Amino acid sequence: MVVFPKPDVEKFLRTYGIQNFAVSPDEKQLVFSTNLNGKYNLWAMDLPNTFPYPLTFLGQSCHALQYDKQGRFIIAGFDHDGNENMQFYAIPMQGGTMKEIVYQENTRNYYPLLSEDGKRLYYTSSKDNPRYLNSYCLELESGEEKLILEGKETGTFVSALSPDESTMLYSKRFSNTNMLLYAKRGNEEFLLTPVSEEQHTVSGGVFVSDTLVYLLTDYAADFKYLASYNLETKTFTKIKELENEGFSDLQYDKDQQLLYVSSEKGVEDYLYQYDLRNGDWSQLSIPFSVIDKVAVHKSGSLYVLGRSATTPHNIYKKVDNEWVSLTNFKIPGIEAEELVEPEIIKYKSFDDLEIEALLFKAKQENDKGKMIFWPHGGPQAAERKEFKAYFQFLLNKGYSIFAPNFRGSTGYGLNFMKMVDGDWGYGPRLDNVSGLDWLIENNYAEKGNIIMMGGSYGGYMALLLHGRHSEYFSAVIDICGPSNLFSFINSVPEDWKPAMDQWVGNPEKDREKLIEFSPITYLEGMTKPMLVIQGANDPRVVKEESDKIVEALQEKGRNIEYMVLEDEGHGFSKKENEIAVFQKIESFLERVVSDKIEV
Amino acid sequence: MVVFPKPDVEKFLRTYGIQNFAVSPDEKQLVFSTNLNGKYNLWAMDLPNTFPYPLTFLGQSCHALQYDKQGRFIIAGFDHDGNENMQFYAIPMQGGTMKEIVYQENTRNYYPLLSEDGKRLYYTSSKDNPRYLNSYCLELESGEEKLILEGKETGTFVSALSPDESTMLYSKRFSNTNMLLYAKRGNEEFLLTPVSEEQHTVSGGVFVSDTLVYLLTDYAADFKYLASYNLETKTFTKIKELENEGFSDLQYDKDQQLLYVSSEKGVEDYLYQYDLRNGDWSQLSIPFSVIDKVAVHKSGSLYVLGRSATTPHNIYKKVDNEWVSLTNFKIPGIEAEELVEPEIIKYKSFDDLEIEALLFKAKQENDKGKMIFWPHGGPQAAERKEFKAYFQFLLNKGYSIFAPNFRGSTGYGLNFMKMVDGDWGYGPRLDNVSGLDWLIENNYAEKGNIIMMGGSYGGYMALLLHGRHSEYFSAVIDICGPSNLFSFINSVPEDWKPAMDQWVGNPEKDREKLIEFSPITYLEGMTKPMLVIQGANDPRVVKEESDKIVEALQEKGRNIEYMVLEDEGHGFSKKENEIAVFQKIESFLERVVSDKIEV
Repeated sequence: MVVFPKPDVEKFLRTYGIQNFAVSPDEKQLVFSTNLNGKYNLWAMDLPNTFPYPLTFLGQSCHALQYDKQGRFIIAGFDHDGNENMQFYAIPMQGGTMKEIVYQENTRNYYPLLSEDGKRLYYTSSKDNPRYLNSYCLELESGEEKLILEGKETGTFVSALSPDESTMLYSKRFSNTNMLLYAKRGNEEFLLTPVSEEQHTVSGGVFVSDTLVYLLTDYAADFKYLASYNLETKTFTKIKELENEGFSDLQYDKDQQLLYVSSEKGVEDYLYQYDLRNGDWSQLSIPFSVIDKVAVHKSGSLYVLGRSATTPHNIYKKVDNEWVSLTNFKIPGIEAEELVEPEIIKYKSFDDLEIEALLFKAKQENDKGKMIFWPHGGPQAAERKEFKAYFQFLLNKGYSIFAPNFRGSTGYGLNFMKMVDGDWGYGPRLDNVSGLDWLIENNYAEKGNIIMMGGSYGGYMALLLHGRHSEYFSAVIDICGPSNLFSFINSVPEDWKPAMDQWVGNPEKDREKLIEFSPITYLEGMTKPMLVIQGANDPRVVKEESDKIVEALQEKGRNIEYMVLEDEGHGFSKKENEIAVFQKIESFLERVVSDKIEV
Repeated sequence: MVVFPKPDVEKFLRTYGIQNFAVSPDEKQLVFSTNLNGKYNLWAMDLPNTFPYPLTFLGQSCHALQYDKQGRFIIAGFDHDGNENMQFYAIPMQGGTMKEIVYQENTRNYYPLLSEDGKRLYYTSSKDNPRYLNSYCLELESGEEKLILEGKETGTFVSALSPDESTMLYSKRFSNTNMLLYAKRGNEEFLLTPVSEEQHTVSGGVFVSDTLVYLLTDYAADFKYLASYNLETKTFTKIKELENEGFSDLQYDKDQQLLYVSSEKGVEDYLYQYDLRNGDWSQLSIPFSVIDKVAVHKSGSLYVLGRSATTPHNIYKKVDNEWVSLTNFKIPGIEAEELVEPEIIKYKSFDDLEIEALLFKAKQENDKGKMIFWPHGGPQAAERKEFKAYFQFLLNKGYSIFAPNFRGSTGYGLNFMKMVDGDWGYGPRLDNVSGLDWLIENNYAEKGNIIMMGGSYGGYMALLLHGRHSEYFSAVIDICGPSNLFSFINSVPEDWKPAMDQWVGNPEKDREKLIEFSPITYLEGMTKPMLVIQGANDPRVVKEESDKIVEALQEKGRNIEYMVLEDEGHGFSKKENEIAVFQKIESFLERVVSDKIEV
């Protein structure tokens, strides 16, 4: 028989992703954004046939996707090479030539919402109000456009329309931990949660009638629960809450009068069904641990984009209590037993706060005895049981990975999340240091021999820990991490700026703190070999953040390598870039953390 | 409502192809070679799910594909960038790292045949006998290899094994119109058609038992029919023939004791079923006009790769008398009514021979009033009702296309096919001239305003007609056509050479004729703007054939453009190259056949 060599680990990176999907009103077509041919494009399948065909050839990430409710066209939002200047296009149902619907250079457009008759597009844009945003209603036929909402004190987004289009929901984003939902009907405006001194968040507002809205909020609570707001009676009602679980998404099935509620609890998601007729609440078993999107078709069919630690993105349909995978993304040539499921670890931080972490242990036959310490980005996000091709790639190469959900992470309640607001560099840093100590105490790693690696806030944390605690590390990898919080605060997208004081700090009032929290303050301490990776078009952490730290360390003669991706933004969306990045990381690690003794 | 612009015609070229497919022994997987991601790679689907996933990332054309009959691996043959040096690889069922099974630089390998137990691979190779070829039996486990057949007088290929592996079928290719099939058992050898002075061809030999072979032959006939040969009794028996139809492929369904017979008649194919138990013969209705491959699974399921003039390659499965398309390749964004179905035209040539042709008329709304005259390649091949993306692309751009099946074409009987043997430049050329006259007489084109375009033999014919009849043309496009038959005869693959005397001519005995038939003889006449396109690795018509004519015409100061594709052979397999070629052709035509009046 033919004996095959061990699979080339590059194959791990040849796993495709799905960014978004939508189902056509007649349920005969499903459109999805996938990098099946190397770059993200829209593809479709003619249900029940699942063989995909391409609708677009733009090669760009899709940030918004919906069908005209009459089934005549698709509206999709694409930016360009990661610049996050999302523009909206109409796309014929069978592909072909796209038409620009909302397109203006250097503007950021959000939340396209089509009217029931497909004649009007509501959306929010930076074009006339880059800091607070405005919302518009565009007549698709005539091109006429009306300003319908002007952002004033903070970023303001229209997010839903009532069935009769007389009422719209909009949210104000003061910060990630302070977001309020309002309804606007004519000149009337209502706040949909009770007025409170306590900051809280609201999301998922859906109309079940012209006057009744269901929403998710953590008003007067630590975890998000299901509530309703009656626009006639102005009544806010708590409907359903679960202990230590926060609801994250809400979808409405009109015919069956059901709400589908996604919930997050630490590193996993759950899915529930709430019957509006009788109040029955039940949990649905799901074959994935993280839910990326839920869509309910008006037929009642349920579609979910999900993944788990060892299963890539796939779109599932619920058929007679079974989940059928419509797509079939897997890791080419890799058997399930070659993949690593993480263990869930809990440890105590410096102040006794409990931190949850994922520990991915390299299989014995691959194990190099090296540990990668990975603080996630966000920071108000979390490391979850979700497939990351590069994690499995590094694991197969023999590196173990430890990923702590330090204070500020989502999935552990609003209070936990708030702990990073205005405290980027103290509490979370010490949570990470406690994680490093835990690894050492439990013999998973040796001090001085740990690889530090992270992206975005995780890249910032990698830089900060490198500068202040380099004694733990053998090498450091920073992927688009802010190096100087003063310049970072100044260079984020304009509509993020209203949130910066609370989230990071005020350059004047918090000057001392921002100096203390900025990695660039600790150049002297950054003595380990370091690799910095940056997308040239990144609008969140601009390239200068990486340029500056690289230049400063090069001047000092430190061992530093720099990789810039010209056609990427905040992360890597193009398959060839992703492969180049992780091949670079692998060769960097092979070189700098090698055990070889050389004279 | 959104009004979309006319589809960008580049979309026509964004249509994907399928080269080959196979179904796994347990019928749970179907593997196929498609350029879905730009280059040809193997993809698979886990039946009945049709969502494809990639098995290889080589980006090369697949020339042979089969499953180990025990379902443990796949054997596939790939060349490199069109060089036609096919090498064999074993591929794990779920993809991953391929293993070279038969790999030797600069050799051509043919017909991999796996034993029932998957332990031995039989194949034919140029490695030790480049002119006549040898066949080998390779033990896959030990790598031990035995020579089992030595080619002597002409190219010799092993093509089938009896169930007990005691007997093999092999064919000798004297020329395309003279191919004999033999059986070899130990030292015994039998010719499977009666000995005859008349040249004929045999193909499709399949064992239905260790001693009974079914085959297709035109022995003592003009069209290929179904026959059997009994190895015990040494009896040849004609089984089934059809008037004016030649059988082209034979597949055996053991369980149901059926033979599936593909048949070609002019521009279309048909599919028949022959019941070995009772001799019943019936025609199957098919939703495609050209059959590229038929595969019968041992379960009795029938799979066909087919296409029509307006439908790209798709793989169909017969389910309860219905054909279900497993793949869903279409032309992105192009409605069926925008595509052109050809008319079948018949005209009389100079000597009264009837010639069939396909006439594709540009839709009125696109029509530029320009006619492309397209003689096919081969020349022992034919223009059929089969999807060509670039035909529909040019039609949509407003060019009509006329494609004659001049003498020598297949699909019209052995005698018609033989008419090009040794007569490359006379009869077929005048058939084309008669076709040009027919277009003019019937007001489809004006003399002097016809665009001449062809590839391979069609490129040769474009050059020859340009040199001798340039008064018909406004522009000429030659894609990898031989320009000088002397150098062509010398530079074809070594194993083609035994056939060259009959097929083209002998450089010494036929010197005068080869001078007369060589386009380069008529440089003076080549006065129209010309575009020459050539793949750098083409082993059939080597690059020098194009270099020479381009140089000679450049020296004369003629209007000539030259495009060389570095990573292609005889044709274009890579999507980006294909698009570049047809964009080049379009811009060349726009420029040189423009009606603009300029001073």
